[in-house]
Amino acid sequence: MFESAEIGHVIDKASYKAEEAALREALLDVQYELKQRADFPVLILIHGMDGAGRGETLNQINEWLDPRLIHTAAFDKPNDDVRERPWMWRYWRELPQKGRIGMFFGSYYSDAMFARVDGGSRDTYDKQLFDILRLERMLANDGVLVLKFWLHLTRETQKKRFKALEKDPATAWRVHDVDWQHHEQYERIRKCAEHMMRLTNTAYSPWLVVNGEDANYRSLTVGRALLSALKQRLEMDHNWQPRSDVAPITPPLDNKLLLESLPLDQKLSKSDYQQQLEALQGRLNKLTRHARFGEHSLVLVFEGNDAAGKGGAIRRITQALDARRYRVVPIAAPSDEERAQPWLWRFWRQVPGKGKITIFDRSWYGRVLVERVEGFASTADWMRGYYEINDFEHQLHDNGAIVLKFWLAISPDEQLARFKLREETGFKRFKITEEDWRNRDKWDDYKLAVCNMIDRTSTTAVPWTLVPANNKYYARIKVLTTMCEALEARLGN
Amino acid sequence: MFESAEIGHVIDKASYKAEEAALREALLDVQYELKQRADFPVLILIHGMDGAGRGETLNQINEWLDPRLIHTAAFDKPNDDVRERPWMWRYWRELPQKGRIGMFFGSYYSDAMFARVDGGSRDTYDKQLFDILRLERMLANDGVLVLKFWLHLTRETQKKRFKALEKDPATAWRVHDVDWQHHEQYERIRKCAEHMMRLTNTAYSPWLVVNGEDANYRSLTVGRALLSALKQRLEMDHNWQPRSDVAPITPPLDNKLLLESLPLDQKLSKSDYQQQLEALQGRLNKLTRHARFGEHSLVLVFEGNDAAGKGGAIRRITQALDARRYRVVPIAAPSDEERAQPWLWRFWRQVPGKGKITIFDRSWYGRVLVERVEGFASTADWMRGYYEINDFEHQLHDNGAIVLKFWLAISPDEQLARFKLREETGFKRFKITEEDWRNRDKWDDYKLAVCNMIDRTSTTAVPWTLVPANNKYYARIKVLTTMCEALEARLGN
Repeated sequence: MFESAEIGHVIDKASYKAEEAALREALLDVQYELKQRADFPVLILIHGMDGAGRGETLNQINEWLDPRLIHTAAFDKPNDDVRERPWMWRYWRELPQKGRIGMFFGSYYSDAMFARVDGGSRDTYDKQLFDILRLERMLANDGVLVLKFWLHLTRETQKKRFKALEKDPATAWRVHDVDWQHHEQYERIRKCAEHMMRLTNTAYSPWLVVNGEDANYRSLTVGRALLSALKQRLEMDHNWQPRSDVAPITPPLDNKLLLESLPLDQKLSKSDYQQQLEALQGRLNKLTRHARFGEHSLVLVFEGNDAAGKGGAIRRITQALDARRYRVVPIAAPSDEERAQPWLWRFWRQVPGKGKITIFDRSWYGRVLVERVEGFASTADWMRGYYEINDFEHQLHDNGAIVLKFWLAISPDEQLARFKLREETGFKRFKITEEDWRNRDKWDDYKLAVCNMIDRTSTTAVPWTLVPANNKYYARIKVLTTMCEALEARLGN
Repeated sequence: MFESAEIGHVIDKASYKAEEAALREALLDVQYELKQRADFPVLILIHGMDGAGRGETLNQINEWLDPRLIHTAAFDKPNDDVRERPWMWRYWRELPQKGRIGMFFGSYYSDAMFARVDGGSRDTYDKQLFDILRLERMLANDGVLVLKFWLHLTRETQKKRFKALEKDPATAWRVHDVDWQHHEQYERIRKCAEHMMRLTNTAYSPWLVVNGEDANYRSLTVGRALLSALKQRLEMDHNWQPRSDVAPITPPLDNKLLLESLPLDQKLSKSDYQQQLEALQGRLNKLTRHARFGEHSLVLVFEGNDAAGKGGAIRRITQALDARRYRVVPIAAPSDEERAQPWLWRFWRQVPGKGKITIFDRSWYGRVLVERVEGFASTADWMRGYYEINDFEHQLHDNGAIVLKFWLAISPDEQLARFKLREETGFKRFKITEEDWRNRDKWDDYKLAVCNMIDRTSTTAVPWTLVPANNKYYARIKVLTTMCEALEARLGN
């Protein structure tokens, strides 16, 4: 969920200055149009990791826009008045009116999330998220434009930030005990936030994850998102209706894509490979015969560039498995019978029972990759695919499945070399088709689709593993190692 | 939720026969069109009280339609295959394909509801209903038309039905231990079903409550609903999108309305009234000073025909209350400030704190009464009002509020007499306006709106009380008695 917001994004001072004035003016323009028309309110919820610049963002928006038309509310511990009434009461009280912008520092999301962080049950958390969804749907139906920001920092960056603030006597007061306490709980907070965003990301009130490390990047990203959401809504007529699909995706402001941060060239000699392979296959075999494996199942998903070596990696796994335990499911175009069903049906029918292993060679991710890029699915359909895929995978996970997803990444040059080799090698010729060459022309479209896919569908429970695969040996070892470690973590000793 | 389905509806044999042939033919026609076009599947879920005719309904549909194009699945205790996989897996497996009709006898709703009936937590129940909503939204987005029937019986009718079946040796086998067990749990099942339907009634997969007492009424109602839903959907083009509002309302087949079953003329002499009034006021006063009243609050809603005596009833209550504890909120047209907010905002701001009493003289129900009848709100807007009102009131209830809603009902003749009296009496002349006369012309529209309102918003936790009010004395005593009993039930001794 946070992958692209964890690679670090920076906008230099000159670029920032060059854009700031125009952005401010444009924001003021839409704010006045909003005031003039006064036919809907805007509610901005600001959340995120401590130290990621939530307060600064709130101040920045107040500085850029006309603060007289902004209603800001910070929610802290509830007082008696609040405790005596239903949970949502204090948020209703602070709603902005039509034509105005309301900004909440903390909200009902904080209540639900920290209750869960502090040990509340998963069922209670889900129930509260359901309460929130109903509230936000009602607000959307009444015309409220709700925008939700999650300002993000990695654990390391957070620590650095706190240390730096503490060192300077002028800013030391900014770091409180509760900040360090949340720092200790970082992983749990990250996981709970991820769950919350997965279940409450809707087209009518979308979440936007923003890397909060660099103030310039953060401010411009939030400012631009606010501008575009307001503009888009102002262009619609008064008969606006909330859509039921999920929130749109925008590429990062600095065009720095997650996949580009992956070092594709890794070294591993053939002899080292063979030695490690044998050890890992033995380790894997033992794990699948572990006493507790029977309480789980294993679902592996292989996706990657054409010719990235999915088949080869899968074979190195199946060599280590008992043939009665596993099934490899290659996914191509759906059959007639499958086409006559909801799109996920053909994957539901392959769900393994306890103690079983299903390996998908390509998968349901076709929905947000090939179907998106080639236009086989409408935008609304592939967009809701993220939500539906997450829902599907987390049902598997909650039922005990260990779900691992691998993206095998190679460079365009490496792909070209492999394509040529396939054409030259008789017994590999079937592996290369016209379609592969056509896909290659859409390299950049696929790259963006892959990055969006990972941001939307990688979670702590069901993570994506990005595998640098220019070196096949390295890739296979990486896959097997990841599998063994995940199994060990879940099965215990 | 079940009010209209509990007054008993009957269709005589001749009327049934007269309609059956045409209905069957029409159903077959739409079934073949569905098959021809094969662009969406239909899923029918059959639920309800034991003995209300679930099996018979399933058989009836199979008899009326072409059973070769119907896929029926009954879900009982899960076997090993099912238990090893996620909850929803077995339902995915049995989905009908495009062009076909699937019928589920029991479904994911039974799993969730009986887990709650058997003592599962409220949070787990809500979480499961959220899971179901996500599934059904996904199915709707993929084009599946989901129709959900709840066949209903009162507890008494259920008992009678079981006894009759047991008496006849030919049918005694139909009654099982589990039926009597569910009969014992009737009230709990009714309450859990109500909660489930309240949270999962959507425009794209609506619930329909059908009185199951009379086979003719039940079959024709289900058949007609099926026909109209299929026709409506077949008329839409292929770009059909699920709407985000709630399910439409149809009047009962026999046009027998709930309000008409209410005996409006009740007797109570002035002297009896005065005696009872004094006792009730004393009892009420004591209850509001009860030690545990401070953990609760009291929200009273008064609605009714014009001149039904709302004001008079409210005064008899406030006479018994400490002025520091209560507030009477008369609801008229919203102010400018209120109009600039989501519609429920003006009621949220009136939510009382603990130990306090708020009396609404008219209320949020204007949304589904005057705004519906006069066309001030769009159909989609007042329709979603039921869902939103339920959500609002149950948040109050869950927070400890005792919410009581009174509908004061008088006959048209009684109203006319009161209007005339008001015109003749100087100090009452302000109480009668042109608008009152205009509303009178729409008597029937209001009557239907009131019945729908009660069916959609009366729940065990937040019930409506229908008050026959042709006799003012009787009405006031009925209101005070209901209040005292509700307070006693909630506060204990």
